[in-house]
Amino acid sequence: MSKGFSRRGFLAGALGTVAAAGTGAALTGCESSSKAAAPAPAVVQFRGAHQAGIATPAQDRLAFAAFDVTTTRRADLIDLLQRWTAAAEKMTRGEPVGSVEGIEESVPADTGEATGLAAANLTITIGFGPGLFDDRFGLAGRRPEALRELPAFKGDELVPPISGGDLCIQACADDPQVAFHAVRNLNRMGFGVTAMRWFQLGFGRTSSTTTSQQTPRNLLGFKDGTKNVNGDDARDLNEHVWVGSDTDQAWMSGGSYLVSRKIRMGIESWDRDRIGDQEAVFGRTKVEGAPLTGKREHDVPDLAAKAADGTPVIPAHAHIRLASPDSNGGVKILRRGYSFTDGVDPLTGQLDAGLFFICFQSDPATGFVPVQRNLGTDALNEYIKHMSSGVFACPPGAAAGEYWGQRLFS
Amino acid sequence: MSKGFSRRGFLAGALGTVAAAGTGAALTGCESSSKAAAPAPAVVQFRGAHQAGIATPAQDRLAFAAFDVTTTRRADLIDLLQRWTAAAEKMTRGEPVGSVEGIEESVPADTGEATGLAAANLTITIGFGPGLFDDRFGLAGRRPEALRELPAFKGDELVPPISGGDLCIQACADDPQVAFHAVRNLNRMGFGVTAMRWFQLGFGRTSSTTTSQQTPRNLLGFKDGTKNVNGDDARDLNEHVWVGSDTDQAWMSGGSYLVSRKIRMGIESWDRDRIGDQEAVFGRTKVEGAPLTGKREHDVPDLAAKAADGTPVIPAHAHIRLASPDSNGGVKILRRGYSFTDGVDPLTGQLDAGLFFICFQSDPATGFVPVQRNLGTDALNEYIKHMSSGVFACPPGAAAGEYWGQRLFS
Repeated sequence: MSKGFSRRGFLAGALGTVAAAGTGAALTGCESSSKAAAPAPAVVQFRGAHQAGIATPAQDRLAFAAFDVTTTRRADLIDLLQRWTAAAEKMTRGEPVGSVEGIEESVPADTGEATGLAAANLTITIGFGPGLFDDRFGLAGRRPEALRELPAFKGDELVPPISGGDLCIQACADDPQVAFHAVRNLNRMGFGVTAMRWFQLGFGRTSSTTTSQQTPRNLLGFKDGTKNVNGDDARDLNEHVWVGSDTDQAWMSGGSYLVSRKIRMGIESWDRDRIGDQEAVFGRTKVEGAPLTGKREHDVPDLAAKAADGTPVIPAHAHIRLASPDSNGGVKILRRGYSFTDGVDPLTGQLDAGLFFICFQSDPATGFVPVQRNLGTDALNEYIKHMSSGVFACPPGAAAGEYWGQRLFS
Repeated sequence: MSKGFSRRGFLAGALGTVAAAGTGAALTGCESSSKAAAPAPAVVQFRGAHQAGIATPAQDRLAFAAFDVTTTRRADLIDLLQRWTAAAEKMTRGEPVGSVEGIEESVPADTGEATGLAAANLTITIGFGPGLFDDRFGLAGRRPEALRELPAFKGDELVPPISGGDLCIQACADDPQVAFHAVRNLNRMGFGVTAMRWFQLGFGRTSSTTTSQQTPRNLLGFKDGTKNVNGDDARDLNEHVWVGSDTDQAWMSGGSYLVSRKIRMGIESWDRDRIGDQEAVFGRTKVEGAPLTGKREHDVPDLAAKAADGTPVIPAHAHIRLASPDSNGGVKILRRGYSFTDGVDPLTGQLDAGLFFICFQSDPATGFVPVQRNLGTDALNEYIKHMSSGVFACPPGAAAGEYWGQRLFS
């Protein structure tokens, strides 16, 4: 349609690279020329012993997607994982998946909306759902014992179309457009192999994953998760988050298990609750975030402390009591949650908003599951509803030359 | 529940302020103690001749809500506008609406999730929909001629529950939690007077509203709106955006009219389109954003230029041709759009994402309406769908001591 316009001359110089364009070459096409002018990017290393996006200091924004695999050909799935790995590595460096411009008659290899934006600490993390280990891809014998559907929990109101999935992609970045761009481009590359099952944008982080980050507030106005594993605590990571070499499935050694829960908060009811009740529900003060037995956020809660009338200072059903490692045989998880809002719920007229909870652990059966069971009597349950659930095995980081999950297929 | 814990002593000092707590005093309660430790806030002045959030340099994030007024009492509506004004002024300074903590048995006057966050250039802008000027509040005679329901446009697929509204609140900030907090707290204060009709989060701005801002990209990967009014161009603002003193309704002098359109993009189809077609649809190059007749984004498009074969270089139905002031009798609007995503559309399995378009003009009948009519044959229409629509009269800025829209009620 736009024959004869003057950019042709400019583009001719790129033809050498672009002439090879095609499925594979799309991953290695020329970079966007405007990229050079972008500010020095904050880049998180993509390859390593563990996948980035788990112990990485929590970025501010999240784009999370779950996919159904629609092909039944193992080779197609492997091919996609290879292409995804190469694309993810490029995007985390702040580069497009491939040529944004290409030549006039070619389809761009990158959708372009992140052109000119910095890498923004983008991490892209992949997980494999239990469904991947059925008889479609010859993986039935490779399912780790730890990867099983989560049990039902008291009060679950899960919505199947926004739960589960064969694959998940967690994209975290300090720029939401960078995170969105990552998921969108992987989705696009999956055409014919995967179909996006559900997607969630997280507009603000609710977790700190290093000791240097401030604990952010959730939409109930409270700090939460103060006692969880920090990504800079190697000992806790090894004990609670990374799968060890003693796993039943060697391909998962160095990996971790991701549990996602979309937790809707009844913020209108919460907002009408008295401050004393709110603080009793959490077991923390609101502004400082201190346990009710302390003065500062990081003061250790004294779960045994009694008030003058003999009642516990931190109430029996307070959230921090029931979620505490001390109430769960020492269990700790690494939390990486984000606040979400999906607008007004047409059924209730209330804001559909809450917490998209993500946690990582070396085994959900000794991580999320017992903690969530213990939270069955959580005073907070009056104000929250679990709407979606997912569990995924995140393989170890890809070594140089490897693709995501290669050890599963070899 | 949490009787006897040690914060009581700390709080006693605040009792003098808090004792007066109640509907009105909720606006003047004590500030959060942790606020003092927040970084120096980027504060946009709330009061002035015009409302902030129109000519203000576009912030990165948006929370937008429309409300139905559920009371029929004029006094209740005025009371709410007074309380909203005081609350909005405080929040734009980075302060809570009122006490986050209060005392044990009181309901917090602020929901708390922005405690410790900077003002982040928050602006809160109010608009009045046509429905407010029915016979409920004695305002039937005060409706400006320019405030009328928008006509139907070719290709509209509007969804009534997410369109229209008696009032709107546009909250823009560089921190999404700050913008969300603003809308949520105003919504909460409206309990019994207003009900939220619809809400939209915008995760990234797609407009630059000053010459110093870079034009961001929309989710089609293109720069758009390059030729629109800049907020630092006083002449354009006076000519195209601010309502003049010659208005039929004096209370609107210094105000502006807001049009909102939720525009879903068929990004999957778009992403399969050839680059030559994409560029022909916009009339711009993708990476640089230059008109097809130029080299740089801000080069003036040559709408008359013809290729060797006699066809126009900027095609007849290209977006920039049809949206150009030159094709619309010199009409210019001030755009303030944001990208959105609402996850996977369960009907199509595609990403529900696009542009939440907002524009301001001195009269929709000479601003948005003729431009949108002209866009009836826009080549872009193959890829977009208008899902929601709103039109609101934004009164002038509140002077010292005034509440939002006071001149409408006096």
